[in-house]
Parts: sequence; C-alpha cells; structure tokens
Amino acid sequence: MTQNALPADMPGLIVDEAVRAALKEDFGRSGDITTLATIPPDASATASLATRQDGTLAGLDCVTATFAALDPDIRVRKDAADGARLSAGDRIAEISGPARAVLTGERVALNFLGHLSGIATATALFADTIAGTGAKICCTRKTTPGLRAFEKYAVRCGGGSNHRFGLDDAILIKDNHIAVAGGVGPAIARARAYAGHLVAVEVEVDTLDQLREALEAGPDVVLLDNMAPATLREAVSLVAGRCRTEASGGITLETVRAVAETGVDFISTGWITHSAPVLDLGLDIQIG
Amino acid sequence: MTQNALPADMPGLIVDEAVRAALKEDFGRSGDITTLATIPPDASATASLATRQDGTLAGLDCVTATFAALDPDIRVRKDAADGARLSAGDRIAEISGPARAVLTGERVALNFLGHLSGIATATALFADTIAGTGAKICCTRKTTPGLRAFEKYAVRCGGGSNHRFGLDDAILIKDNHIAVAGGVGPAIARARAYAGHLVAVEVEVDTLDQLREALEAGPDVVLLDNMAPATLREAVSLVAGRCRTEASGGITLETVRAVAETGVDFISTGWITHSAPVLDLGLDIQIG
Amino acid sequence: MTQNALPADMPGLIVDEAVRAALKEDFGRSGDITTLATIPPDASATASLATRQDGTLAGLDCVTATFAALDPDIRVRKDAADGARLSAGDRIAEISGPARAVLTGERVALNFLGHLSGIATATALFADTIAGTGAKICCTRKTTPGLRAFEKYAVRCGGGSNHRFGLDDAILIKDNHIAVAGGVGPAIARARAYAGHLVAVEVEVDTLDQLREALEAGPDVVLLDNMAPATLREAVSLVAGRCRTEASGGITLETVRAVAETGVDFISTGWITHSAPVLDLGLDIQIG
Amino acid sequence: MTQNALPADMPGLIVDEAVRAALKEDFGRSGDITTLATIPPDASATASLATRQDGTLAGLDCVTATFAALDPDIRVRKDAADGARLSAGDRIAEISGPARAVLTGERVALNFLGHLSGIATATALFADTIAGTGAKICCTRKTTPGLRAFEKYAVRCGGGSNHRFGLDDAILIKDNHIAVAGGVGPAIARARAYAGHLVAVEVEVDTLDQLREALEAGPDVVLLDNMAPATLREAVSLVAGRCRTEASGGITLETVRAVAETGVDFISTGWITHSAPVLDLGLDIQIG
Amino acid sequence: MTQNALPADMPGLIVDEAVRAALKEDFGRSGDITTLATIPPDASATASLATRQDGTLAGLDCVTATFAALDPDIRVRKDAADGARLSAGDRIAEISGPARAVLTGERVALNFLGHLSGIATATALFADTIAGTGAKICCTRKTTPGLRAFEKYAVRCGGGSNHRFGLDDAILIKDNHIAVAGGVGPAIARARAYAGHLVAVEVEVDTLDQLREALEAGPDVVLLDNMAPATLREAVSLVAGRCRTEASGGITLETVRAVAETGVDFISTGWITHSAPVLDLGLDIQIG
Amino acid sequence: MTQNALPADMPGLIVDEAVRAALKEDFGRSGDITTLATIPPDASATASLATRQDGTLAGLDCVTATFAALDPDIRVRKDAADGARLSAGDRIAEISGPARAVLTGERVALNFLGHLSGIATATALFADTIAGTGAKICCTRKTTPGLRAFEKYAVRCGGGSNHRFGLDDAILIKDNHIAVAGGVGPAIARARAYAGHLVAVEVEVDTLDQLREALEAGPDVVLLDNMAPATLREAVSLVAGRCRTEASGGITLETVRAVAETGVDFISTGWITHSAPVLDLGLDIQIG
Repeated sequence: MTQNALPADMPGLIVDEAVRAALKEDFGRSGDITTLATIPPDASATASLATRQDGTLAGLDCVTATFAALDPDIRVRKDAADGARLSAGDRIAEISGPARAVLTGERVALNFLGHLSGIATATALFADTIAGTGAKICCTRKTTPGLRAFEKYAVRCGGGSNHRFGLDDAILIKDNHIAVAGGVGPAIARARAYAGHLVAVEVEVDTLDQLREALEAGPDVVLLDNMAPATLREAVSLVAGRCRTEASGGITLETVRAVAETGVDFISTGWITHSAPVLDLGLDIQIG
Repeated sequence: MTQNALPADMPGLIVDEAVRAALKEDFGRSGDITTLATIPPDASATASLATRQDGTLAGLDCVTATFAALDPDIRVRKDAADGARLSAGDRIAEISGPARAVLTGERVALNFLGHLSGIATATALFADTIAGTGAKICCTRKTTPGLRAFEKYAVRCGGGSNHRFGLDDAILIKDNHIAVAGGVGPAIARARAYAGHLVAVEVEVDTLDQLREALEAGPDVVLLDNMAPATLREAVSLVAGRCRTEASGGITLETVRAVAETGVDFISTGWITHSAPVLDLGLDIQIG
Repeated sequence: MTQNALPADMPGLIVDEAVRAALKEDFGRSGDITTLATIPPDASATASLATRQDGTLAGLDCVTATFAALDPDIRVRKDAADGARLSAGDRIAEISGPARAVLTGERVALNFLGHLSGIATATALFADTIAGTGAKICCTRKTTPGLRAFEKYAVRCGGGSNHRFGLDDAILIKDNHIAVAGGVGPAIARARAYAGHLVAVEVEVDTLDQLREALEAGPDVVLLDNMAPATLREAVSLVAGRCRTEASGGITLETVRAVAETGVDFISTGWITHSAPVLDLGLDIQIG
Repeated sequence: MTQNALPADMPGLIVDEAVRAALKEDFGRSGDITTLATIPPDASATASLATRQDGTLAGLDCVTATFAALDPDIRVRKDAADGARLSAGDRIAEISGPARAVLTGERVALNFLGHLSGIATATALFADTIAGTGAKICCTRKTTPGLRAFEKYAVRCGGGSNHRFGLDDAILIKDNHIAVAGGVGPAIARARAYAGHLVAVEVEVDTLDQLREALEAGPDVVLLDNMAPATLREAVSLVAGRCRTEASGGITLETVRAVAETGVDFISTGWITHSAPVLDLGLDIQIG
Repeated sequence: MTQNALPADMPGLIVDEAVRAALKEDFGRSGDITTLATIPPDASATASLATRQDGTLAGLDCVTATFAALDPDIRVRKDAADGARLSAGDRIAEISGPARAVLTGERVALNFLGHLSGIATATALFADTIAGTGAKICCTRKTTPGLRAFEKYAVRCGGGSNHRFGLDDAILIKDNHIAVAGGVGPAIARARAYAGHLVAVEVEVDTLDQLREALEAGPDVVLLDNMAPATLREAVSLVAGRCRTEASGGITLETVRAVAETGVDFISTGWITHSAPVLDLGLDIQIG
Repeated sequence: MTQNALPADMPGLIVDEAVRAALKEDFGRSGDITTLATIPPDASATASLATRQDGTLAGLDCVTATFAALDPDIRVRKDAADGARLSAGDRIAEISGPARAVLTGERVALNFLGHLSGIATATALFADTIAGTGAKICCTRKTTPGLRAFEKYAVRCGGGSNHRFGLDDAILIKDNHIAVAGGVGPAIARARAYAGHLVAVEVEVDTLDQLREALEAGPDVVLLDNMAPATLREAVSLVAGRCRTEASGGITLETVRAVAETGVDFISTGWITHSAPVLDLGLDIQIG
C-alpha cells in the first residue's frame, strides 16, 4: 500500500486562513495585474497538476482551498490523496473553471504543495530507510515560522511521527533545566508538579550515567542525544521498556538505519522540516 | 569586503509582527512550560550565538526582535551583521538577561536565522559562482507562504537581486496571457494600458522567434526561458541592449556560470528560496 | 463609449475584508438596533440604487459584498458597471431580499460607493479636460488611510492611471535623497543597485538643469515638479523620448489642459483622491 | 480663544492601531525602498510641519504615533494643539531624529493630518457661520469606511457635535421603520422596549403632522428632515422644549444660518465628513 | 407566554467571528486528534441537544454557527428559540451530519450555549421575582472579557434590559467625576457639552441631598446607589418622573422585590453576568 | 503556606493581547467619554485595590497590563501575588498615575481579576476539601470561550491541576470513539498510531468491565466517569498503579472528599471554571 493511513486531517478553518494569508501576500494591494490586464473575466481554463519527480504528496487541501478562495466556480478533481507515493509524471489533480482564478492561484497553490510534499518526500525517504526496524522517524520544532502545523502534517503524510507541536504541549527537559533544578530528579519532579497529568515528560541525556539517573525519576520518554549506535544499544537495554526512547543528533540518511537497529523507538531529525528541498510540480494550463 | 552593502532593512513593524506570530505559534496556549516549571523567574543567562558552518548571515533583526518581545530586559550584542560571510565557529551575537526568556526564545530565533541564512548562503554560492560576469542571481515568487519579504531580503543579503514581490508590483506575461491576448504585441499593449507608468513589463519567451516578436513591442525585460547557452548568447545579441534580459529554467550551480557568460543581465532560480537547506547555528546558553 | 475598459478588478478577498471591517465599525457591539426593534425578521424589501448627480461609477462590488455579508439571501441586480458615466437619476442596481439586511447595509454600501464614485467622477473630469492630448491623469500616494487600493481602483474607473501604490513598488527620488546621495547620478545608481530589475526609478526635478543631470543617469521616469507650461514644453523636448515624463504640483481643472498640451505623458494630482467630494447617491427602499 | 475645549482625546490604543495599519498599507511588503537605498541609517533630520492654508487642526496624535511607530528615537515637538485655528504658514510641529524614519513617515502622517484637519476646517466654517444662534453643527454616519471615530473626533475639533457613532448606540427611526411598525407611536414603543434605558430615541419626520404624532410618543430627539426655514420655525414652536430638535437635508454654507435661526438645537450635514477637501499642509525636511 | 419578544438578534458577522475564535482556541495547532484518529471521515451522526435543568435559552445561533464553521453539510434543526423557558429534559435542537464535525464541535457549542443560557436563566429568575412591579432588571459592565455583547444579549433573552455596552455609548458620572468637575451640576454640564445629543447622561448619587442637587442639573437617569428601600421610595418620589431611576448595590434575589416595589424603573446587578452558573445541557450523540 | 508554587506564568505576549482586546471592547469607538468630559488630562490619582471577600488571587498581571496599555506613566505596586490566600479587606495593589487612565482601566482590570480570582477561589475550596488525600482537583475544557488559558492558569493559582488545554494536546477517548473504532483496544491502538509519542492517551470508562478492557490496551490515564465511591475504590484497586486515574461526573463540594478518599489521582470538575462566582473586589480611587 502506498498511502499513509489518515491523511488530509488539517482543520479546514486553519487551512483556509493560511491560504488566504498567502494569497494576500501574493496579491499585495491590487492582485494579479498581468492576468487582469490580459485575460477577460469570462475566459475559462483547465489545468493539470502533476509531479515532475518521484515523491510523496502532502497539502492537496491547500490547493483546493486556494482556488476556492479565489472563485467559488472553480472545480478541483483530485486524482491522488495526501500520503500517496507518486512517480514522476503522475497526475495529482485537475483544476477547471474561470481562467483568471486558475492563473492567479497557480503560484500560491504550488508553493504550498511543493513545500509540504518536499517534507513528506524527505520523511518517506527516512521512513523507507528504516523500514522493518521498530523505529519511527519523527520531526522536531525546527520548522518554518508560521507553518509548523502544516509541516508536522506533512511529516505524517510521509509516514513519520510528530514530536511536540510547541513549548506548551509537552515537557522537554534539557541540560540547562537540569542544572538549575539541581539534577534530573528534581527537574522531573518540578515538571510533574507543574504540568497537568496529560502532559508527557521527556528528558534529554548525553551519557549512560545521566540516563540511569533520569530513569529513576520516571520520565515518559528519554531523548538520547548524540550517542553512537553502540551506546544507543546499551541505552535501550538499560531502559528495558520502562519508557519510550528517542535518538537525536546529526542523524542523516547514511546513519539512520544503524541508529534504528539499536532498538530505539523514535529517531528525530530537523532536516526533514528545515532543509527538505521542494517537490518539483507542474501545472499545465489550457485556456478556452 | 565580506558584507552586502545595505543589510538589515526590513521594516521593524513587519519584523516585530512576524516574530510575535512565530512566538505565539510556539507558545500555543500556555507557553514554555518546561522552563516555567524548572527555571525561577530571577535566574539570568548569557548565550553565545555562533555558526557551525560556513555561510552568509541573514535575519539578525529577527533574533533581536524575538528576545525583545519576550523580555525588555534582554540585551543582544551583535558581533556580525546581515550579509556577513561567516566561517564555522564565528560568533554572531551574545544574548544576556533573564534566563527564562533566553531559553524560551531560542528556537524561534534560530528558526528564523537558520532559514534566512540558509537562503543567503545558497544565494551567495550562486553569486560567487558567477562573479566577474555581468550577471546577477535573482529570486522568484517560489517562496515559503508567509515569508516572502523575509526570503527576498535574505536573497539580497546573499548578494542576489530581487524579482517582483508579488502579482501586483510588476507585469510578467507568459504563454497563456499571450495566447488569450492574441500575441505578444497585444499582450504588452494591454499591460501598458492597464498598469501605471511605474510598473515594469516583462515577457517570457521560449524561442528566438518569440523574442524577435516581443522586442518589437518594447518590454522592459525579457525572460529567456529554458534556453541553452548558445541560444541565450544569440538572444542577448538580438536584444542588443534594448531591454534587460533574464535567463531562467532549471539553473543549477553546475550550469549557472555558463549561463552567466552568455551576457544575460539576470539569472533567476527558485532553488535559493524553496530548497536551500538551513544554515546550522548553535546557541550556547550559560545560566547564572 | 461610456465605460472604462477594465473595471471591477479588485480581488474579491480584499473587497470582502474591507466591507466586513466597515460593517463591524457601523455595528459597534450590537448592530442595527433600530431595525432589530421595529422590523420583523421575515419582512422583505426591494431597493433601487440610483445616482442623484451626473458622475462616474466606482465600487459596485463593495455594494454587492456588503449585502452578501449581511444575508446570503439578498440579491443585487446590477444595472450599471464600474466606469460607467451616469446621468442624474440613472439606476445603478436593484437590491432585494430580507428587509433587515437591506436597511442595515444601506449606509455602509453608500459610503463606499459614494466615496469611490466621487473619486472616479473627479478623475473623469480631469481626464475629459485633457482628452485628445497624449497625456493621462494619474493619482499619488495622497490617499485616505486604509483605502489606498480602493481609491487607486476608483481612479482607473474614472479613466485615470495609477502612480505607485506604496513606498515599496517603485523608486521615487526626491531632493533629500539626492542631497544625501551626493547628486542625481549617485542616487539613481544606488537605487538601481538596491532594487530589483522590475522596479522603475523616477526622479523628481525642479529645474531644467536638474533634468539634464538626471537624464544622464537614465531614470525610467522624470517627475517635473511645479514647472510652468513653457518650461514643461522645454523639458519634454529635452527628454526627447528617452524616458516617460510626469508633471505635478498644484494642478487644477483650470490649468491641467495647458499642462497636458506641453506633451508630458502623465499629470499627477492628489486632489482627485484626497479632496474629491462624494457622489450623491440614493437608495429608495420599499418594504413588503 | 481659538481652541476647542477638549481636544486630543482619541484613545491611544485606537490611534496606534490605525497608524500602524496605514504604515503597513504604505510599506507593502518591503517598505520605503527609495530611502533605504539612498539614506544611510545614521543620518538625522529635522522637519518642520506647517499649514499652507488657514484652517483648523485635527489629528496631531496621529502624526506623533506615526513617527513613534517607525523609530522610538524620533522626537515630535508640538507647536499647536488639535482644535487650534491656524493661519497659512503657522508651524504645527517640529519632528527630529533618524532621517530614514522622518522621510518614511511623512506621507502617512500628512494623510491623516490633512484629512482630519480638512474635516475640522469644514466643520469650523459651518460652526462660525451659525455663531451666536443656539444651534450646533453636527455630523452623520456618512463617513469614510474605517475612519469613523477619527472623523467624528475631527468634527469635535472643528467645534461641531457628534451624532450617533453607529447603528448600535442610538435609535434613529425613519419612514420604513415607522411604516412596518404601524406608525410613529408603535415604532417608538418597540424601540423603548427593545433598547436599554441609556439609549436615546430619535424619530425622523418630514411634515408637521408627522411631528405632532411623533411628539405624543415622547422621543428624545426629532429629526426635521428637508423642511424650509419657515416650517422649521413652526416645528420648533410645536416641540416647545419637549425634546431636542435636529434639522437635516441638503444643508449648505449658504443655507445653514437661516436654518440655525429657526431655533433648532442641531443641524446635521454629511458634507463635513464625506466631502471636505484636505487641509494643505507641508513638511519641510532638512537632513544632517 | 414563555418567550422573550425579540430573540436571536446578534449580527451573524459577530457570532461567526466569536465562534471561529473559540474553535481555533480549542483546536490549538492540529484540531481534534482523538476524533481524527478514531472516526472515519465518512461516518455520520445525529445528536440531540437538550437541557438537564429548568432554565432560559440563549445562544442557539452560536451552536448553529459552530457546526456550520466545521462542515457546511451539518444540519441543525432548532426545536426551541432563544428566550424560551425550558424544563429539564426539553429538547433544544437536533444536529445531524458528518460525525467528525458533530464530535469536534460539541464542546465549543455547549460552552457558548451553557454560559449564555446560564446568564439568561439568572436574569429570568430576577425578572420573575419582580414581575408585576414596574421595574426591570438590568445588567452592568461587569461582564466576561471578550463576551460583553453576547452576555448583554443573554440578559435580553432572560427578560432583562441592558445598561450601557461600554465606556463610549453613554455617560455615567460617579463620585470622582463629580469631585473633579466641582459638583454634580458642572459635571453634567461638561458631559452635555462634550457628548453628542444622542448620548444619555446618568449620575450616580448616594444620598437624597445629592439626588436633589443632581435633579437640578437635568440628567436623563439617576443611579441610586446602595439605598435602603425606604430611601429609594423617597428618592422616587423626589424624582417625580423628571428622569428615569435606577437602583443598584448589592441587589440579591432576596432583596430585589423590595427594591422593585419602591417604584424605581431599573434595578441593575452584576451578578447575572459575572456570577451566574452555567445551564447544564447535554448533547446525546448517535453515530451511524 | 498560602501561595501556589509557580504563579504569574502566563506569557506576557498573551496577557497583553487579551487585555488590549478587552479594552477595545469597553472603548467601543471613542473610549471613556465620561472621564474625557470631566477629568482634565493632568489630574493624577492613587487607587487601592483590595478584596471584599476571602479568596485566592489570580490575574494580577492582567491588572498591570491593563493600566500599562492605557498609560506608560501608571505605576502598579503589587501587595500580593497570584496564588495568595486573601482575607476580606486585604490590599492587593496600589495603582497611581494619570487619573484618566486609572478611571478608564478600572472595570477591565476588575473584570479580569474578579473572574480569574473567582475561579482560583473555587478551586482552592475544592483543593482544601480534599487536602491530605493523594488526589488533586483538576479542570476540564468547560471554559468560557476566549479565556481558556487564563482560566486554566487560575485553576493552577487555586492549587488545582490542568486537564488538556484543547482538542489537540492529548487524546481523550469516549464512548462514541470506542464504538466506531470497534472497542477500547482498537481505539487506543488507532490513537497511539496517529498521535506523536509525547501525546498522552486517556480513556473514559463507565463500568469496571470497561475498565478491565481498557487497562489491557495500556492507556496513560483512565477517566472513571460517574462512579460511586465504592466502585471508584474498586477501580483504583484494579488499576493498581498501571496508569493514572481520574474521577469525574457531578462532583460537588459535598461529594468531593469521599471521591478523593477512594485513592483516585485526579478529580475533574467543570464547575470551577464554568460556574464559579466572581471574587468581589474593590478599587478605591483618590484623585489629586
């Protein structure tokens, strides 16, 4: 099967708002003056949206919402769904309706879809590389300002899992927090006392000694930072199922399988959100 | 000299607004609960911001604005300026003040600075590659939704030039516009009649025949799309200084110098904005 | 022909947003309490929108959007289009549907339409006065805060042309910029180096000497400020088609034809946007 | 005395928000590119703000807020206050500080101040014309979308009085409301039952018969619409102090004194807000 | 009769905006993850909205708007109207359509409806207690931040009347204003001079002496603060119909009838808006 | 000890935004006209903020932010901190500065502080009642639209704990989710597969049989809904520390201790957020 199980679940309210903001950014004060000058209001167009590269799709609702925001008479027929693995040339959707709206919406639609599909594609590449191990690839908070929820969604489309969405929905205790709190134990205790009972607590550790200390305080997750595969393997064995494990730090496509085979549950990498190249897409427009 | 001539010129009003939106995105409903739970309000910190890679800096005002939005008592001492060419290890700034604000602002500050410096670095790479030719590298509208002005600024920091900022500030006539208008001549005429006298008109052409036809209509710029260097050279010679020339279409670091040597004025590429990897930066925080 | 060529091209997204803001301004916290108190929800009304003065229409989409925002069941039948030259008494539109929405929307709809048609009417007056010369009347940035794009649109409806929309979409070099840059030449050079290749550069000059100096630097447009017709004529002859020419400074209906006959391409005046009186319109409402 | 008693009372929060929106409108996506290209960040300037026409001042806080929003280092020294009667040439304020901010803020500051002072000037003209009668000039809801509170403030600066600010803060019963409610009496009764006890009720009447009927229902104000002076005089005598009286309908500078001498309490005119020409102001900037 | 005369009159624009903000508050960054994880997009549901307590309904449009904002395919059949007196178990509405939207919208819909119906219920309790006297119960500005217009609407649904909506729509002169103005008379004079002729003036008095002084200045309403019933009766007799009277200060269900029987016109209490418990409602959802 | 450990931790950005929105709501279009009419701009005032009832304080930053938004010259001296247990008459803060701002901000400041302190007080009442048991009182999503983060903060000030903040930050599986997913086990499995590894999963059960089934699926928390104390005790014993336990359903001050003594970890109640009466506060203002 080539699809992620539960795609296209961004709330419509949030998609619409982001798409309208992007359109206004592109419109500036007066909109698509080239199209207004040259295309009569009654011209109609049909456009075929396809991928020019192999990749994984994410963000099709942004395409639909872009054209809907421009003209209620535009129809978008989806030929693929978010999470789909595409081969170069595969058609994604057909857009038809008033030519002005088709031409005007093209760039915003492609900017969303290319960016998000780029992230999904990068995620899928990592996910494929560790297939068969028990590990899952997951994202970080290293996202593009303003697009976090969209980029996290794209990670899910690519078969990855999501780390926390922000500073408020989970506790992640790092070295500075530990130092000020007076140790891992007191830090976790303060976190548990502060946060509600539905807030997970994760602790970052750099060494096996820190891990041992952390485990006594009972975190929900330990973040094993910058450990070599051998150390990771030992760490997993130390944890012995008492909490979830996450590996991070300089993970690349070359190193990720070795990390996954150590038995960690999650492998997080900022690369899939902050450095994934766009997926190359094309919109072929026929007018009249 | 390692600096772009006119850096740090994004209006403060626009920087502040983007930074506050990013902080709210990261805060969610209740902010940095890890820090609130573990760091007392009166703790202070000093942090050293440095680059871990060679690259070109862009977005330092976003860093300043992030910490200023969190606490007026935070001080940011800049050790470099936007446009600076940095070597791995170079210090960029020192941030000092209330520890809570330093820890809470870290990710948003780095997300802006890493993303924008990544674009500046990619741009500088292209710019360096064509140094000595008369050509300039320039961007497109293929930007991340919500960040267009910031990304175009980063292109300038990297020594690149900006294409239009949106659909409204210049005319760019493509094949569909020409087809509906009944030819390049009528399309340009309609554009001139529609737009004000301070709006430049650019026409995209694929062949030398189209170029000849376009030149008769007197555009301000011709976009020479997907032409081989030999054809580009011929095109430049055909134009003979009557308007500016821009080459585009699948430009890579490998091909860009050959394109630049054809004599075109501008070379545009979406890659520098939509696919540039982040610049790897680090914030080393000392508390107390 | 009584119509401007390309009316009604404000992006719907922008019109809707402005209209909703205006309705909320008029609603305050609780809306049209007079109508809520006296008109039952099921009453229906028909209203005839007509002009009480001769004039040029602009802003009909604002009327449609106002009533649509209040009640999806309201129908607006347009009997004229933006850009139309109207005689006193001419019907513009018929609005029919729920009486509450018709009564509640009346003032906001008329405030937009009257204001914008006032500007279109003033513009048309100037445009008519210079008909047959090669000059076009154009606007400035002297617009009402918040309504610039709408007022510039109204200028187009009146047969005028648009100057730049803001500080960012064209360069306009004035005396202070020249003084600091060290002359017209360096100022234009800095501008060209700074701005993208699709940004036009205009320079303001007060004397023929300044004009000569400016022309050597190759601007796209020269702004001939406060020159008498004889001087303007000489200036046009000096320019000799090397760039576009714009006359400005204290232009009135009495003086504009003499200015136009000097051969300048554009004549700009703030009066048409900042001082045009409203076009007097009436909405005759029949309930039941 | 040349001043209105209580000027400059717009809440700072509201002024700041409007000014920032206007600056963003003028900035577009990248701000004042001419100034950024030609003026170094460390240049300073002094500017003298003066009027070129006789008039009444309104909106000086908008000027202060504009420059403050651009740069906290700008100083504005006020040489006059809102409500002041100015003669051509009178200095209003001196602005000094960073040259970039002075140049960038000029147009937005003048657009607010010119527009609002134009309204204050028009109001003062009417107010002067009826000086010595017991009548006061007042405004309507015929204001520019987005600027109602500012324009109503300008009316107060000009010595006028304010009608209701929106649909929600007072009841104004017109012919359609009366027709549907089944007469003036029932309409007022419904209004009183619906609205709170701090909401005034005004009824519009066209004839003395309607006035008699209205008076029996006990309104707080009667709006005497389109009545000739003789009829107005009779109306005032009929009212006999039982409620306040307001005259409206086609009031001009020529007719307003005759109307005022009939003894009405208020005379409302849309002209002062929707058609007042701008007050011509100048900002003389010296750099260095 | 079990209905308030004029329910459901909040402008749709305002209801929609508040409901969307509440949904976004509940969504956070990624929406209803429980429902997205467990309910397929094509499941449908029917839900019965009923009250579990006796009470008065207010806010049904918020329910409709909540579900409409989530999915245009949801249908809401209203079985009661705002202002209705409900008995425990009474059905209020039936919601049917896509199961995801029904489940996701439940809490926001109930939060609005429960809160507003709680206020309506509390108001109705007071209103019933003083039935048959000439007094009306009314609210204050002691409302929940962000919900004032909604809470004032709920007061109307409960049979109460509204005091002013904010600081701007009526004058309420208290002890400090009087002290600084130099007495009740000067304070009212300043208020009349400042505010428009459609703004009512109310003065708060604590003693009969203050009341006598206030009456000479001709207020529209006197606020009799913290007076015992006997004093109130005397105050009403002193006023003798010259203006409206309002009693306030520590009014409870136990004391309100005695106050009402003194002959005052209005009795204001903050309790009905700031301390009314929620009305207990239930949404019984059947899927499939 | 009379203080909660970590008060006043709402992000300043979020507090400022809420306070400004509330001020704008109270200002309407023109602000505090009573104060503007009667108090000169140079008058100063000192105000003492005190409680008139015993209670627990929450929201003092809202008070500070309110006055700061009105005038930077206002000083607020805090005499208590959020989380403090107050006795009737205790002073909370002293506000001094420009009289206009003190008078204008009073109501908004008190509306926030009274509402939030009411919730803190109600929470503290519950928390005190179960003191000495191992249980903690916690809130729900039954909050006032727009104020969720503030109300959850107030719960913490009162010594309570927070349930999830929205639909997105934790999984809460109820009967409908279970039914559609085909049982508790599949529902939890779907939730775990869908959500990230930092998202806690809670399941609601009504019976011990459901609890047994749920426990096998390994939730992080079980919500024991509407169980009698005896059943709760049995449930706690069944759970045997394998996950956290939460009791809910019709909890009152009378029943809460018996519930707490069953050994459950958390007891949730909507009452403390949706029905807590305001804490009665007073601001005693002295002018001059």
